[in-house]
Amino acid sequence: MRYELYYWTGIQGRGEFVRLALEDAGADYVDVAREAGDQAIMPFLQGSEPGARPFAPPFLKAGRAVIAQTAAILFYLGPRLNLVPKSETARLYAHQLQLTLSDFVVEIHDTHHPIASRLYYEDQRRAAKERATDFRQYRIPKYLGYFEDILEHSNGKHPLTRHSYIDLSLFQVMSGLNYAFPNTMRRLRRKLPHLNALTERVASRPRLAAYLASPRRIPFNEEGIFRHYPELDAAR
Amino acid sequence: MRYELYYWTGIQGRGEFVRLALEDAGADYVDVAREAGDQAIMPFLQGSEPGARPFAPPFLKAGRAVIAQTAAILFYLGPRLNLVPKSETARLYAHQLQLTLSDFVVEIHDTHHPIASRLYYEDQRRAAKERATDFRQYRIPKYLGYFEDILEHSNGKHPLTRHSYIDLSLFQVMSGLNYAFPNTMRRLRRKLPHLNALTERVASRPRLAAYLASPRRIPFNEEGIFRHYPELDAAR
Repeated sequence: MRYELYYWTGIQGRGEFVRLALEDAGADYVDVAREAGDQAIMPFLQGSEPGARPFAPPFLKAGRAVIAQTAAILFYLGPRLNLVPKSETARLYAHQLQLTLSDFVVEIHDTHHPIASRLYYEDQRRAAKERATDFRQYRIPKYLGYFEDILEHSNGKHPLTRHSYIDLSLFQVMSGLNYAFPNTMRRLRRKLPHLNALTERVASRPRLAAYLASPRRIPFNEEGIFRHYPELDAAR
Repeated sequence: MRYELYYWTGIQGRGEFVRLALEDAGADYVDVAREAGDQAIMPFLQGSEPGARPFAPPFLKAGRAVIAQTAAILFYLGPRLNLVPKSETARLYAHQLQLTLSDFVVEIHDTHHPIASRLYYEDQRRAAKERATDFRQYRIPKYLGYFEDILEHSNGKHPLTRHSYIDLSLFQVMSGLNYAFPNTMRRLRRKLPHLNALTERVASRPRLAAYLASPRRIPFNEEGIFRHYPELDAAR
């Protein structure tokens, strides 16, 4: 099966969670818009392609199936790429963790866009500073504390009984937060030993390391979810 | 199977999407916190109960399984309550639509809490006004336009081939928006004939009508997701 991933070019965005799974599994896939341009996405959003109509990218074409929503794509790919244990209980648990990460990703995005996604960051800077302050003080510790705890009460290495797409998604969120909020993350470092170890372990998985060093990995930048605006991070 | 639903008392919140499915199907369930108080929720959040540890309510206990995240609970319940067609394609499509509604619900909530969930509305009123203006002008039309279109290109009555939990969730979102943004929704009315018809149809399903008229249905109020703050709605 050759999978087709559809996601906007130029940013990692939500598409990156799917890319990491495909890359880690060595799956056969095409990153369609990066070959054919963003306009390849439009017919699906307009409903002129057969199959389920997505509200937004990322979506995945797998044969005739079209699957949208990051967490649903990973739920679908998990067993097919051997990136989740096979039981329904484990699959639902992984899905719940991924959906919690999705909620976190919305909050991370909204630190720089608390008023409207449509507007520039520069036009919502004051609200962004307020939201980011609360986010650094309460939300990062709450979410990362939850996942640190999950790791501490599992086998210490993986949230599930073995490597899964949740490890990859946690790697992505940790990497993004390290990029966007370096001072805040440095302060939290000692409280997150399992998450930090997981992040390093994932980065050194052979296929992932090769991907991260390749031009297929788009660098973090100030167009995506994880943006480094020093005024939104803590002082040193 | 007697299901146990865990959700904070006093608000409809995200728990309501699960309640509507259980009520519409005539399922055997207990709304645990409404019988035993909110403290019944805590041991699960603290990880001292066996099973998957939820990040937040709602979560469902089904035998020994604990399933968290509204959309995942509905994904699990759908086939068991005969509230979704049985094929994997249909189940994933329903799930994608529910996840899109979940994204919408976050945006609806954040109109009155654009800075921090932790703080009072009164302390983030200025940002709320800005966010709500953008929300009314761009986000309501975008989301509801998408679902109206889905209905227009399906059989006109249901987003899937037959009645499903997505009909119930759309009913809930439409009812909530009608409560919170009555002027805005009145203006949009002519553009949403299928959604309005669906909302009325769902409200008159016998089990749902009985539920909505019962004390089990908590009224909309200014503690929940859908809040009526006149200054956040459009002028008449």
